[in-house]
Amino acid sequence: MKSIKLFCPATVANLSCGFDVLGLCLDNVGDEMIIHKTNEPGVRITKIVGADLPLEAEKNVAGVAALSMLSQWQTDFGFDIEIHKKIKAGSGIGSSAASAAGAVFGINELLGKPFEPKDLVWFAGWGEHAASGSYHADNVAPALLGGFTLVRGYNPLDVIKIDSPPDLFVAVIHPQIEVKTAEARAVLKKEVPLKAAIAQWGNVGGLVAGLYTHDYELIGRCLHDGVAEPYRKALIPGFDETKKTAMAHGALGAGISGSGPSIFALCKGLSTAEKVADAMSDIYETIGLPYHRHVSPVNPDGVKILEQQ
Amino acid sequence: MKSIKLFCPATVANLSCGFDVLGLCLDNVGDEMIIHKTNEPGVRITKIVGADLPLEAEKNVAGVAALSMLSQWQTDFGFDIEIHKKIKAGSGIGSSAASAAGAVFGINELLGKPFEPKDLVWFAGWGEHAASGSYHADNVAPALLGGFTLVRGYNPLDVIKIDSPPDLFVAVIHPQIEVKTAEARAVLKKEVPLKAAIAQWGNVGGLVAGLYTHDYELIGRCLHDGVAEPYRKALIPGFDETKKTAMAHGALGAGISGSGPSIFALCKGLSTAEKVADAMSDIYETIGLPYHRHVSPVNPDGVKILEQQ
Repeated sequence: MKSIKLFCPATVANLSCGFDVLGLCLDNVGDEMIIHKTNEPGVRITKIVGADLPLEAEKNVAGVAALSMLSQWQTDFGFDIEIHKKIKAGSGIGSSAASAAGAVFGINELLGKPFEPKDLVWFAGWGEHAASGSYHADNVAPALLGGFTLVRGYNPLDVIKIDSPPDLFVAVIHPQIEVKTAEARAVLKKEVPLKAAIAQWGNVGGLVAGLYTHDYELIGRCLHDGVAEPYRKALIPGFDETKKTAMAHGALGAGISGSGPSIFALCKGLSTAEKVADAMSDIYETIGLPYHRHVSPVNPDGVKILEQQ
Repeated sequence: MKSIKLFCPATVANLSCGFDVLGLCLDNVGDEMIIHKTNEPGVRITKIVGADLPLEAEKNVAGVAALSMLSQWQTDFGFDIEIHKKIKAGSGIGSSAASAAGAVFGINELLGKPFEPKDLVWFAGWGEHAASGSYHADNVAPALLGGFTLVRGYNPLDVIKIDSPPDLFVAVIHPQIEVKTAEARAVLKKEVPLKAAIAQWGNVGGLVAGLYTHDYELIGRCLHDGVAEPYRKALIPGFDETKKTAMAHGALGAGISGSGPSIFALCKGLSTAEKVADAMSDIYETIGLPYHRHVSPVNPDGVKILEQQ
């Protein structure tokens, strides 16, 4: 194989109750990436379409993730990476994770798959480290493994993939404002009241149970966030009304995607997800804030190969 | 049916990562209870063998639980309850929960089962309220439903039962010291560092996943407690050494049962559980502290009917 073209999916992290541990993979929202094997060793970002991001591999999320992987696998050839960004940076649906995940997935394919998917999550996490200054895997894990993922811990990295119930769909509204991850981190408290923490881990346990048993109502009951949402929602105009509208139109639950500003809703059935996305869109029409609207099944597999030769 | 004789099982709450939400049911450790239908309305505790507990129904855990249920179901007859306590009060393996669970289970049978098992958990929780001053269901839920249980929340009560993987066994050591629940509560911090809280809900999610997928290693990796154990272990002489020994002898994980002083270890296979229980016993032999030792499968069903007529 000399080159590979990939779909690099967007992802929704946290999922209300699972701050820093849970995530899911979207199926029809994502970047495209083309990676060519070249005679020249090393990694080069040759082209980025749709975003103003650094071309130097050492400063680019995809480049850093790729170099992290290649530090564990010596080759006498190299890779040219071309990125077509469709996920907006700072949207809260895993833009940097998509690039990091695509780079390690694609190069692994071109190397003949020496690494397991869970190794790829580890390498891609270093791309996230380059983007945000802290190592985290709650977006790269679902981008690479698909379905729902739980990052249980980091020492060592322990990631559990959970398949999605078949009839679960995701509605996402991305209001076009900037919420910097650093700012969204800064508003959080460093301590959580024990009572709120107990509710949170009860909900994480319940959500995982609901996913295994395909209990959509239980999944909905678990989508509460007493840790980040109470503080972060102030950064997102129209959040309360949007969430309320999503619930009124039949969403199982709704909350902030990652550190925002995107808002996600989980829904049973495509038609409900479409209705919920329309209703959430109406809020931003009324506010007069530009937005992107997405409706997607849960992507069962993560990064997809579009072409290879 | 005029009378019923029951086995009322002991239970292990918290399970390291799941403070206040998780529990499991033991299979061969428990009280016996005999309930007779009588012509005289009301609930009477006619006899308690093996413990010095109040006979007035309104002050007795079993009585309070029974009265809570009967406030929702009028009868022109009543019930005499005889309790043979085998679980020591204050042991940390759900002594009061066993009595509360037995009373509501037995009376429900004698009434012709008007209530669902999850209703019974709610009523039994009021027995726990009488015992400790706070409503909680993390012992009565596994005592009534069997297996593992997750109390997701209380408004309204939301309890999820998870079947145990078949090869999971529990070793329990009960050092004969008194740890008052109130004291064990008092040593806890009212706030949890966000980092410790994240680790805790990652572990709860992982443990639930491990139970559904029968992944014994994953179950073991999740048995950590950064919230209660660091403070409560000081109340239990020999805790660190006992836990270390349990792990060295092959336990998947070990921790404080409920609020202590009992120490539990989850093990794959009966022979490992026996070895672990022996090794934990040796610690208390050396310390010179009297103890009880239990090895049990996970009870799949909760309270059992021994006789009825």
